[in-house]
Amino acid sequence: MNETGRVEAFSDGVFAVAITLLALELKVPQLVGQVQGRLWGELARQWPGFVAYVVSFLVIGIMWATHHQAFGCIVRVDRVLVFLNLLLLLGVVLLPWAAQLVAEYLDTPRGGTVAAVVYSGVMTYHAFSFGLLWWWVVRQGSGLLDPALDDDAARAMLPRFLVGSLVYPALVGVSFLSALAAVVLHGVMAVYYAFNQLAVPRREAEAEAGVGRGAG
Amino acid sequence: MNETGRVEAFSDGVFAVAITLLALELKVPQLVGQVQGRLWGELARQWPGFVAYVVSFLVIGIMWATHHQAFGCIVRVDRVLVFLNLLLLLGVVLLPWAAQLVAEYLDTPRGGTVAAVVYSGVMTYHAFSFGLLWWWVVRQGSGLLDPALDDDAARAMLPRFLVGSLVYPALVGVSFLSALAAVVLHGVMAVYYAFNQLAVPRREAEAEAGVGRGAG
Amino acid sequence: MNETGRVEAFSDGVFAVAITLLALELKVPQLVGQVQGRLWGELARQWPGFVAYVVSFLVIGIMWATHHQAFGCIVRVDRVLVFLNLLLLLGVVLLPWAAQLVAEYLDTPRGGTVAAVVYSGVMTYHAFSFGLLWWWVVRQGSGLLDPALDDDAARAMLPRFLVGSLVYPALVGVSFLSALAAVVLHGVMAVYYAFNQLAVPRREAEAEAGVGRGAG
Amino acid sequence: MNETGRVEAFSDGVFAVAITLLALELKVPQLVGQVQGRLWGELARQWPGFVAYVVSFLVIGIMWATHHQAFGCIVRVDRVLVFLNLLLLLGVVLLPWAAQLVAEYLDTPRGGTVAAVVYSGVMTYHAFSFGLLWWWVVRQGSGLLDPALDDDAARAMLPRFLVGSLVYPALVGVSFLSALAAVVLHGVMAVYYAFNQLAVPRREAEAEAGVGRGAG
Repeated sequence: MNETGRVEAFSDGVFAVAITLLALELKVPQLVGQVQGRLWGELARQWPGFVAYVVSFLVIGIMWATHHQAFGCIVRVDRVLVFLNLLLLLGVVLLPWAAQLVAEYLDTPRGGTVAAVVYSGVMTYHAFSFGLLWWWVVRQGSGLLDPALDDDAARAMLPRFLVGSLVYPALVGVSFLSALAAVVLHGVMAVYYAFNQLAVPRREAEAEAGVGRGAG
Repeated sequence: MNETGRVEAFSDGVFAVAITLLALELKVPQLVGQVQGRLWGELARQWPGFVAYVVSFLVIGIMWATHHQAFGCIVRVDRVLVFLNLLLLLGVVLLPWAAQLVAEYLDTPRGGTVAAVVYSGVMTYHAFSFGLLWWWVVRQGSGLLDPALDDDAARAMLPRFLVGSLVYPALVGVSFLSALAAVVLHGVMAVYYAFNQLAVPRREAEAEAGVGRGAG
Repeated sequence: MNETGRVEAFSDGVFAVAITLLALELKVPQLVGQVQGRLWGELARQWPGFVAYVVSFLVIGIMWATHHQAFGCIVRVDRVLVFLNLLLLLGVVLLPWAAQLVAEYLDTPRGGTVAAVVYSGVMTYHAFSFGLLWWWVVRQGSGLLDPALDDDAARAMLPRFLVGSLVYPALVGVSFLSALAAVVLHGVMAVYYAFNQLAVPRREAEAEAGVGRGAG
Repeated sequence: MNETGRVEAFSDGVFAVAITLLALELKVPQLVGQVQGRLWGELARQWPGFVAYVVSFLVIGIMWATHHQAFGCIVRVDRVLVFLNLLLLLGVVLLPWAAQLVAEYLDTPRGGTVAAVVYSGVMTYHAFSFGLLWWWVVRQGSGLLDPALDDDAARAMLPRFLVGSLVYPALVGVSFLSALAAVVLHGVMAVYYAFNQLAVPRREAEAEAGVGRGAG
């Protein structure tokens, strides 16, 4: 396995553990005696936990897919990239904790705002740490980017990333209006990213396509 | 590693963590003083936890084997497949929580039904999310399926999958008659699937076999 | 990745998670007020937890190494092998729970015996599930074993495995004399296995060695 | 996958799980009633948890990078190396527990010292277990080291490792002066190591460079 593959394998492990730890946030109600009717009720009362679970599962899943696609464009890692990747993962691992905060407080009048602000803050950190990593990769003469990629196009994605980074701070603001809306919008953003992922044009691919067209 | 291998590696990580988290559901009794006799008794009283553990371990294990076999037939992933795979994993990660619910309530007169209904519901979700993923893979002209496979045979498996999907909703019904029976039947189904897994006919394999026979 | 590699990768994931979950068994004392002196004391009072941690870490680590070495001799997996491997992993994942039982009860006069019996029981289960898996692999005409291996030698290891399986039931007996001795002996056995692992003679290797000698 | 790759994959799994378990140490405050103002306050009061999280995340991350770089120089594993690697991982898995101790006690007048001493002790153990592993790899005629590496240079790194091992015991001393300073210095050391990793000169690389120069 080359050096890039190693960093990816470690990162994949962290993503996989973090996404699975989300389940620990779902609590099993502790009831005794005549319980059945109340057990359905107790589970229903945990709706913020299920909302936090579904949203966070999609969010971490899409984070993983995007991280993976970005590393697919990288052919070499240096020490700074290893370090920036660690800073990125540090934010990913915070998400199950933020999800638990949302699960616990989303349905409380004032705690919900705090939880949604913290959640949006963790997402903002993620967006910036990802932008920083990508900036390091595409900077002039780094040699980290796959030479088969179109350098200018890859660099041109940076502002698009940073625009994406503006949505999460905006959701910090939304948290003060409606905590639930902010959390749901994080889920909507994840689905949006799922179908609008980073697509860096490949010189190689274009060349191949050209050959294909020429042969047709 | 190709794109299919990456999705598989991430999924394998999630399956491995989820199956190991099942152990967290087994509680260690907290006793003080003259304990020995009561410790055996306390462990015996946790029998629903052990039933939930063994059944869920087999269930997640067979889910992994089936998932793996299905991805062995896939040569290309697209965004929709990544997303459908996430929705599938979302159900897998719910299982340790459902198992904990069963562990806690299986031996209570009315809570047991709720727990078995929830458990069967998670399994039903799993069956449908798996059917949806397979439908996306085998649909006309998707190009995701291994060309060495017999397309018609692969497509013909879809109804068989959906028939399989009918068993889990039926176990929701069984839960109202006997929660224990429903949980045990989930274990029986897992063992059944272990020895009757998806076997998509391979053109390549047949061709090779033909060559072998021709040469014999 | 071939089918064997996949089963190994999943198993490695389960071993890695199980060995790391051992740390969850180490508790952080909850003290308030004038604490320092008592914090050292509280940590010292947790010695059964540290004993259980060190012994179980070595035990799972050596289990992994042995499992790995065994799978290095396997070139093909069938459905039964996948199932037997699941039954084996089911025992591995029980170990963190058994370790927690030891951590909680080793220093209690009567609970310690129960904990050591359960721990030795889980180890006995592991030995038998491993023996069963190896029996399936080396049985006449299975085609699962690497053809480069000496079949007779591989089969001859089975009784040795089963002899090994006798030690763990014996430690169930020792548990009634001294729970601490039983747990420490599990650690000693792990270190013993670490330096006396399964070494199946390879025809290939012998052939190569022969060639080397012939050429010398 | 060769034997070295297997040991690395297992170790990577342990590192990935351990670094993600750090998040379990971050607690979600349990407040009821008029909570919002107090929730911010409660989160702020948990600052030792966030300090322990960030420091330990960097520490384990850099441990992983160093472990990985060291194994990149190894071409063969023997039983002793597998065992020494297990002893090393045993210390890695202790770190989330030590981090939890710091999170719980860093802001208490006397418990903080105990927590920082334990944390520094775990780090000291890590440094010595790593030095021991490297000593085994580079010892005369082991055949474990990549032949493309400059043996003398690789061996010359041992004292440098051991010098590094002196810093952690020194931080045990610092813990008695200021627990917070000791913990922060562990973070500083991690960042220092991130940019000053082990760089063993490669004969091959030099040779290639020589060829390149000769051809130029």
